[in-house]
Amino acid sequence: MKVTVLKNILSANEQMAQKNKQLLDSHGVIALNIMASPGAGKTSLILKTIAGLKDEIKIAVIEGDIAATIDADRISDEGIAVIQINTGGGCHLDANMVANALQNLKLEEIDLLFIENVGNLVCPAAYKLGEHKRVVMTSTPEGDDKPQKYPVMFTEAEAIVINKIDLLPLLDYDPNALKRTVSGLNPDAAIFELSSTTGQGFERWLDWLRAELKAQG
Amino acid sequence: MKVTVLKNILSANEQMAQKNKQLLDSHGVIALNIMASPGAGKTSLILKTIAGLKDEIKIAVIEGDIAATIDADRISDEGIAVIQINTGGGCHLDANMVANALQNLKLEEIDLLFIENVGNLVCPAAYKLGEHKRVVMTSTPEGDDKPQKYPVMFTEAEAIVINKIDLLPLLDYDPNALKRTVSGLNPDAAIFELSSTTGQGFERWLDWLRAELKAQG
Repeated sequence: MKVTVLKNILSANEQMAQKNKQLLDSHGVIALNIMASPGAGKTSLILKTIAGLKDEIKIAVIEGDIAATIDADRISDEGIAVIQINTGGGCHLDANMVANALQNLKLEEIDLLFIENVGNLVCPAAYKLGEHKRVVMTSTPEGDDKPQKYPVMFTEAEAIVINKIDLLPLLDYDPNALKRTVSGLNPDAAIFELSSTTGQGFERWLDWLRAELKAQG
Repeated sequence: MKVTVLKNILSANEQMAQKNKQLLDSHGVIALNIMASPGAGKTSLILKTIAGLKDEIKIAVIEGDIAATIDADRISDEGIAVIQINTGGGCHLDANMVANALQNLKLEEIDLLFIENVGNLVCPAAYKLGEHKRVVMTSTPEGDDKPQKYPVMFTEAEAIVINKIDLLPLLDYDPNALKRTVSGLNPDAAIFELSSTTGQGFERWLDWLRAELKAQG
């Protein structure tokens, strides 16, 4: 009797992530999975990006947090559609949580979807959500050694954002040291140095998003 | 036939943590579990504390990281006994990892043991290691809302250290907002505001450690 061999079986999460991506694609929505340590500035990056692009495209946000709606409230205050996911202790979003959130968004009215993951530089790396691009943020006060200590996330991201460069004069931080590590782990990643407070470096980030929207749309 | 009912069964991790604590107690070692986001300044706090107390007591360190030995190297450079645990992807230390590390330390020569957990504000909260005190650090650039977003860790800690107060003039950060949240979650926690860079606020932290050593020794 012939033995059935199944290859490349996807995990339940990966299957759900693929479905999410198909749903997003069918509506022409580009989704970014934003991952970083707590307090690296994920929500501030999203808010500043909204301010820069809201006259060109329609944006929505899925907010992942252990608890509370602080970030979702900040985004809702800007008149942007936002769905809060509280993981209730879980250290990352998963594709099923995002699938539920997508059912509550009017996808036909969205061009760009930010999915802000739980603040965590470890767990979110292991769970695809259906996103088109993975963006890892790191902020200058965290130190320039983060890609060495948390290599998985930095290896798999398509874009790396170094935030809070306005604080550089006060810190012992070398952006080139971080870039050297990243060039070994992930030479194709796009790297952005910016400040969501001052807006420095934002034009290059916005141009990258515009190019992604054009390439995928 | 009588049914056997077992109550309060400890998890394997909790059992191992109790054994670690007994081993530490038998040698008069006080252990602190230091938990924080990546880059909050765990290693810098430990180094500055070593500088402040090394003439009074003997200190050792267990370093937890996903990968690399960057922090252990910094501590070893100061002539301090240090054991590196690389979790290989795991987002927290557990009691078994610490048990193995303890076998490699000369406990009879140690008064105070720092266990620096993996940089993560979520997962480490769920795993006791055998420590006497749980210390959560948060740094000012992360924002004053961290206890609301990551309540478990802040609820269970005996001490909360707010690091990088030297950066306050540049930040939109209100220490009192954080303290108000903590007073609701965990009114008994000792709170310290300090800078491992400038040394501001360190005397109070060192005095707390001295008192803990005295109380438990």
